[in-house]
Amino acid sequence: MNLKDYIRDVPDFPQPGILFRDITPLLRDSDALNHTIDLLAERCREYDIDIIVAIESRGFIFGAPLACRLGKPLVPVRKEGKLPGDTVSAEYFLEYGSSRVEMHLGDVGPGDQVLIIDDLLATGGTLAAAAHLVEACEGEVAAMGLVIELEDLGGRNTLGAYDVFSLIQY
Amino acid sequence: MNLKDYIRDVPDFPQPGILFRDITPLLRDSDALNHTIDLLAERCREYDIDIIVAIESRGFIFGAPLACRLGKPLVPVRKEGKLPGDTVSAEYFLEYGSSRVEMHLGDVGPGDQVLIIDDLLATGGTLAAAAHLVEACEGEVAAMGLVIELEDLGGRNTLGAYDVFSLIQY
Repeated sequence: MNLKDYIRDVPDFPQPGILFRDITPLLRDSDALNHTIDLLAERCREYDIDIIVAIESRGFIFGAPLACRLGKPLVPVRKEGKLPGDTVSAEYFLEYGSSRVEMHLGDVGPGDQVLIIDDLLATGGTLAAAAHLVEACEGEVAAMGLVIELEDLGGRNTLGAYDVFSLIQY
Repeated sequence: MNLKDYIRDVPDFPQPGILFRDITPLLRDSDALNHTIDLLAERCREYDIDIIVAIESRGFIFGAPLACRLGKPLVPVRKEGKLPGDTVSAEYFLEYGSSRVEMHLGDVGPGDQVLIIDDLLATGGTLAAAAHLVEACEGEVAAMGLVIELEDLGGRNTLGAYDVFSLIQY
C-alpha cells in the first residue's frame, strides 16, 4: 500500500501559493488509516518510549490510536487556553502566523522518554515548541514521528537536535 | 474500572461558574483510555455503522482509535476554514458563544449509517450541527456516542430525534 495515494493535493490553501496536503482521504479509508498506525507503531519500537505526546488537533488523529495500540499514556499539547490545569507554555511560528501551545504540568515528568506525534512536518515550529514543553518538564524527546514531511521547508534542520521520522515525504 | 475516577473536576473553567470535566487524566492512563475505546466499540455493535464522524478536536481523540478498532472510515468535522475541499457547513451555539463546523462534501454519502463521536455532551449544539452536516449529505445518524454526558444541561432533549449513548454521566 502506497500511503501517498491517499493524500490529496489542494493548491492555494489556506493561502495562494500554498500546496496543501490533505489527509482526509487517508482517514476515509480504514485500511490506509490502520496501516498508517501500524507503520508508526513499528517505527516506535526502535525507541524505549514512556509517553506519546500528540499535538492538537490533527496530531490527535494519529497520536490517540498509536497510544492505544502501544499501550502508552497519551498527553495532549493544545492551543493556548484549552487546558484547564496548570500548564507550561511555548510560542511558535508557522507559515501563516504565530501561536502558543500548552501542556499540563505533571503530565510529563523528569526522565520520561517522549514520542511527539503530529500529522505533518513543515517548518518544524510546532514540533520545536512541543519539544520545549517536554523539556521544560525535564522529559526527554526520544523521537518525533510525522505522517507527512515537506522536505523543501527544512523542518528537519530546525529540529536537528532530535530524531525525526516520517512515513511520506514530498 | 470506574472511568469517573479518571475525570478531574476543575471549577471556574473556562469561565466563573463552569465546572469543567477534564479528560486528560483518562488519556494519561493507557488502561483507562483503551477501556474507554473498548466500551465505545461495544456500544457501536448495537448499530450497523458505515462511518465514524468525529468532532474536532477532542472528538478526534476517541473517534480515531474507535475507527481503527472497528475498521471503519473516519470523517472529521472541523472548525470553519480548516478543511481544504468543498464543504457543507453548520452554525452551532455553545455555553460560551457560537461557531461553525464543516465537513467535506462526499465524505458521507446517501444512506450511509453514521456514528457521531465527541468527548462530551453539554447542551448538544455541536452534535446537532454535526448531525445537520451528515443529513445535508443524505447520510443517516445511526447514533451519537459520548464519553461524558452532563445531564443537567439537557443536551439529550435537544437531540431527541437521535439515539444517544454516553459512558459517564454527571
